[in-house]
Amino acid sequence: MALIVKKFGGSSLATPEHIKKIAKRIVEDKQKNNSIVVVVSASGDTTDDLISMAKKMHPNPPHREMDMLLSTGEIVSSSLMAMAIDNLKEKAVSLTGPQIGIMTDSAHTRASIRKVKTERIKKELQKGNIVVVAGFQGKDDCDEITTLGRGGSDATATALAIALKADVCEIFTDVEGIYTSDPRVVKDAKKIKIISYEEMLEIASSGAQVMQSRSIELASKYKLKLHVRSSFNKKEGTIIMEECESMEKVFVRGVVIAKNEARVTIHNVPNKPGIAAYIFGKIGKEKINVDMIIQSSDHQGKSDISFTVNEESLAQTLEVMERAREHLKAGKVSSDSDIGKIAIVGVGMKTNSGIAGKMFEALAKANINIEMITTSEIRISCAIRRNLCDKAVKVLHKEFELGK
Amino acid sequence: MALIVKKFGGSSLATPEHIKKIAKRIVEDKQKNNSIVVVVSASGDTTDDLISMAKKMHPNPPHREMDMLLSTGEIVSSSLMAMAIDNLKEKAVSLTGPQIGIMTDSAHTRASIRKVKTERIKKELQKGNIVVVAGFQGKDDCDEITTLGRGGSDATATALAIALKADVCEIFTDVEGIYTSDPRVVKDAKKIKIISYEEMLEIASSGAQVMQSRSIELASKYKLKLHVRSSFNKKEGTIIMEECESMEKVFVRGVVIAKNEARVTIHNVPNKPGIAAYIFGKIGKEKINVDMIIQSSDHQGKSDISFTVNEESLAQTLEVMERAREHLKAGKVSSDSDIGKIAIVGVGMKTNSGIAGKMFEALAKANINIEMITTSEIRISCAIRRNLCDKAVKVLHKEFELGK
Repeated sequence: MALIVKKFGGSSLATPEHIKKIAKRIVEDKQKNNSIVVVVSASGDTTDDLISMAKKMHPNPPHREMDMLLSTGEIVSSSLMAMAIDNLKEKAVSLTGPQIGIMTDSAHTRASIRKVKTERIKKELQKGNIVVVAGFQGKDDCDEITTLGRGGSDATATALAIALKADVCEIFTDVEGIYTSDPRVVKDAKKIKIISYEEMLEIASSGAQVMQSRSIELASKYKLKLHVRSSFNKKEGTIIMEECESMEKVFVRGVVIAKNEARVTIHNVPNKPGIAAYIFGKIGKEKINVDMIIQSSDHQGKSDISFTVNEESLAQTLEVMERAREHLKAGKVSSDSDIGKIAIVGVGMKTNSGIAGKMFEALAKANINIEMITTSEIRISCAIRRNLCDKAVKVLHKEFELGK
Repeated sequence: MALIVKKFGGSSLATPEHIKKIAKRIVEDKQKNNSIVVVVSASGDTTDDLISMAKKMHPNPPHREMDMLLSTGEIVSSSLMAMAIDNLKEKAVSLTGPQIGIMTDSAHTRASIRKVKTERIKKELQKGNIVVVAGFQGKDDCDEITTLGRGGSDATATALAIALKADVCEIFTDVEGIYTSDPRVVKDAKKIKIISYEEMLEIASSGAQVMQSRSIELASKYKLKLHVRSSFNKKEGTIIMEECESMEKVFVRGVVIAKNEARVTIHNVPNKPGIAAYIFGKIGKEKINVDMIIQSSDHQGKSDISFTVNEESLAQTLEVMERAREHLKAGKVSSDSDIGKIAIVGVGMKTNSGIAGKMFEALAKANINIEMITTSEIRISCAIRRNLCDKAVKVLHKEFELGK
């Protein structure tokens, strides 16, 4: 008998038939004598529909009211799921985030979970109920309803699984797990059976959209086992867990692509302490995520600073940089929105040298020019021309024998 | 400066344009230096849509889960309304029933309000906010979400207005007020300016659908002034308030029709104490509303008992009566689903005799046969053939000079 937290995303709940199919699957697991907590997202396009209703009322709706509005999508899913389970003769009860006591800070539309109460949910489990939780939502200390932003239901599931000391947290999604590379690009990409939190974090931050980093970080901190798997079949997916010795035998776990990158360069910045802090402080304030950062070597007391951002943030970034340029009395600001990013990830790199060289050589052989490089202990990322991304990822996937 | 509670029904909130128009109206009233609490229903067909989703999950969804589901409709309306008001540069905050502390019993899908907390709402009003309340919902002592059943948003508005000692509770609807008769049938029906709680209760229980009886009863108990008026124009509607002397000068306030009635008769019932209690106890248990009840005079220790129910409840009523017949060893059960009901209502009847005679004479002159009669202090109802209802109501409206 295990305690399992299962999280289902919106595409898994898109129609009444989807919900009923998943209810059946949940009931089967319950009947294997497990205690089950289900976390659901809003179904299909519900959240988008609610946002478009809000936009008709107000060009920039107050965040507090957005949270009131958006929180209803998950409540609808949770009550429908509880009904579908009840119809299969298993006891179920739906609960809103505030009912459980998912306590958050007051940052409406992107709140963080501060505390998870477990009294109510434990009481319902003891009664033999399958507990169906409306994901993505909580309340702050003033009883205001909050939502957790992108990946919010993953955060709910992870936080609940940790608070309840669940045996595993299953993240059901529309893919079968984490792959050695994007299967749409690399035909022989393989599903990864086991991956460490660290590797998963590098993959997530390098652009793979399966899970948000904050949930992986949280799971890592409490050593909660995550299982990313398909909503539509019963195959084993990918287990995300603590690093173990066997993992280090694999040099490279996967190759990640992120095509929608843009590079920004600010030229001739005075080369003195505090400059980088100033620039990236300003960008951070605007909540723009910066990835690769490179500072050129000093040239007569000046240097160039380049970095990459998601292409969507480019316009906003350039505005910020233009103001920074004036303030710093730096040279011009230039940008290039035609680049992409490829990265290889693997804990094996920590103990194996020569991986970087092998990567660069393979790219060179394929005539792919590397424009920027950044590395972490378990990741090497390169910025290249966007149109070469697909080719590069195939080359690297083959080079590191990930299809085998 | 007044404290006004305003309630808007679903048809007043059917589209984004409706909501924006009403937001404008609310803001105008706020800018006259009033404190405003707005209670909203779910917009348009939302509740029906949610019910149909539930039916796809479960032929008979658990009531607790229905409440979770249905409560979202009003939350959506309330947050959209708060956004629309904010967009007109007035401060607004939406609140769910549980957030305010609309405390109910635990009778899911038809809960009754037990207590209304006012701390939160007063705090928001003091901050200068227009408070937009999701109607129709509350929570019980175990923090379970409940809904208040038909007319639930009226109940929310009335209970809040009483708890806050509001100056008036305005019920906005798709009609302009209460009429002397149904304007679709009687061309010269007039809007009633002032009506007593008692008269309004008789009109509501005789079939006019503007407000549910329980909200009128509640208002009556606390002498809360209700104002039933149109969502779509600014004309004064009908004030429902305490009876005053001037009201008694009008003998008949209005003529009510209810066409979808059915009569049920159980024949040859033993004429002894407890029989009526037995029959109507069984019917009450099924939550069927019985209106007119007539017991024939004793004939060799037996009598016939006839009563009317809404035609929709006829099949269910006949089932109950068939079981009662067996138990009581009574004669056959017969029914007639081709009848209607007309009633005249007015507090003036209390102090003026001859009204009943005048009514019966007018009907007789028009060749309309009366099949059953029941009376209260301020109402006289007659069951007649259904196809004669329209004719009868015109005759009575003219007889009592209500068009003048």
